[in-house]
Amino acid sequence: MSKLQDILQLRVRYSETDQMGTFYNSRALEWFECGRTELMRRRLGMSYAALEEKGVFLPLVEAHLDYQGGARYDDLLDIVTTAELSGRARLRFEVQISQSLTVKPVVSGYTVHAFADATGKPVRPPSWFVELMQKTAGTTDPI
Amino acid sequence: MSKLQDILQLRVRYSETDQMGTFYNSRALEWFECGRTELMRRRLGMSYAALEEKGVFLPLVEAHLDYQGGARYDDLLDIVTTAELSGRARLRFEVQISQSLTVKPVVSGYTVHAFADATGKPVRPPSWFVELMQKTAGTTDPI
Amino acid sequence: MSKLQDILQLRVRYSETDQMGTFYNSRALEWFECGRTELMRRRLGMSYAALEEKGVFLPLVEAHLDYQGGARYDDLLDIVTTAELSGRARLRFEVQISQSLTVKPVVSGYTVHAFADATGKPVRPPSWFVELMQKTAGTTDPI
Amino acid sequence: MSKLQDILQLRVRYSETDQMGTFYNSRALEWFECGRTELMRRRLGMSYAALEEKGVFLPLVEAHLDYQGGARYDDLLDIVTTAELSGRARLRFEVQISQSLTVKPVVSGYTVHAFADATGKPVRPPSWFVELMQKTAGTTDPI
Repeated sequence: MSKLQDILQLRVRYSETDQMGTFYNSRALEWFECGRTELMRRRLGMSYAALEEKGVFLPLVEAHLDYQGGARYDDLLDIVTTAELSGRARLRFEVQISQSLTVKPVVSGYTVHAFADATGKPVRPPSWFVELMQKTAGTTDPI
Repeated sequence: MSKLQDILQLRVRYSETDQMGTFYNSRALEWFECGRTELMRRRLGMSYAALEEKGVFLPLVEAHLDYQGGARYDDLLDIVTTAELSGRARLRFEVQISQSLTVKPVVSGYTVHAFADATGKPVRPPSWFVELMQKTAGTTDPI
Repeated sequence: MSKLQDILQLRVRYSETDQMGTFYNSRALEWFECGRTELMRRRLGMSYAALEEKGVFLPLVEAHLDYQGGARYDDLLDIVTTAELSGRARLRFEVQISQSLTVKPVVSGYTVHAFADATGKPVRPPSWFVELMQKTAGTTDPI
Repeated sequence: MSKLQDILQLRVRYSETDQMGTFYNSRALEWFECGRTELMRRRLGMSYAALEEKGVFLPLVEAHLDYQGGARYDDLLDIVTTAELSGRARLRFEVQISQSLTVKPVVSGYTVHAFADATGKPVRPPSWFVELMQKTAGTTDPI
């Protein structure tokens, strides 16, 4: 099974709250991005910044979010992210965010990404990237 | 058919772009919110702010987004929002965002909202709200 | 006096509030940007997007904000922006944001911008830009 | 000298960049907030969340920012924050943000905060808070 998994911990910023007292809904997509960024650096061994420098971009094509519970300013959250190649030319990240202390679920969802060059034109995933995914996925420790 | 529909026009802010040159993905959820806000004010005749003052809150429980095309700084966008009651205790908004000048699609998706009181406890939609939805939906001009 | 002035009206978005119930402080800088954008389009006759296409960028070098009063979700705000060339190579925008209905002040401040080329290197303001500022400033109606 | 100092390291998020390729200017105010939050937790021994629970709020009354250099997606930044009581009823935070690896300055500035109760009414700083500031400031290790 060619999956990579990583866990990132972060705190809810004051700027991420809204007048309902919990986080504003769009912030979850920004936390998803933080999860992807750290998964690539720590599990794939190649940061997303380095990938873009090689001319490979991962524009978002689909996102889904299920809001399951609140998270307040300064709450500590666990972001568990799983990555896998999907179909011929898609990269899919599954995300589960929960409260670090109570383990209560906060948001779950997924994002689907295409592969594109620097001009935004869709491309097939480079073979070296596919091999890197397969090689590292086989050696990832389960969390 | 108890549906309300409204169209809102806005421009992409510089703060909403990212280094790929198009809008950052989470901004679409904020534009969805702008669409809901104006639909309620202009088609339902009751602003969401007034609804919250009456103790009725609409927390987001589910969101889905399909990213279809780019939108750059200062581009003028059309946000078409449709609202309807869904099941016993859900309000659902369908959204289509497109370029005002070229009519090219940018993002489509939906959000599903629960009804809650000021403490966040789920409640059934107030009967006056259901009646207001039904009454105004019947009189909305198609766009 | 080579000053341009414009007024823009916008509503506080839900995403711009925080748990204190008023707008989160950094949003004011985004509203300042909206004010600059519309001033340039409507008073200078050249949008900032068009300016960037000509290779002229206006990176922010200094910002100051005085927070004077609250603004809640859906409040209607007036953003009064004044632009003038400052020294040899700076563009300065003064901003006053107030409540549209009560005229109560919300935030005032200023931003100072350098002129740069597409690579970020500081440049002198193009002479055609200086002339455009001077020509249009003389014809602006006071608000 | 009753000053508290703390250093926080964070990475630039993709959502914090803009089309110029560096961070969008308002994000710096959000990083200032992250610096304040960690300084209070780690140097004062009382988190800002705990302070709000005791009914003490610190609304922002003034902010100043000098933009000194770029910071790109995934760059690691050092946020050095210094806190001190200012005048009779103000708390002042000085902030210097720089690149962790090159030590190049990115943004410096300050924020000034009033003391308020839960309704937003200005109050004098509680004596226990002043004592806590003075006691901990004397024991902070210089960075």
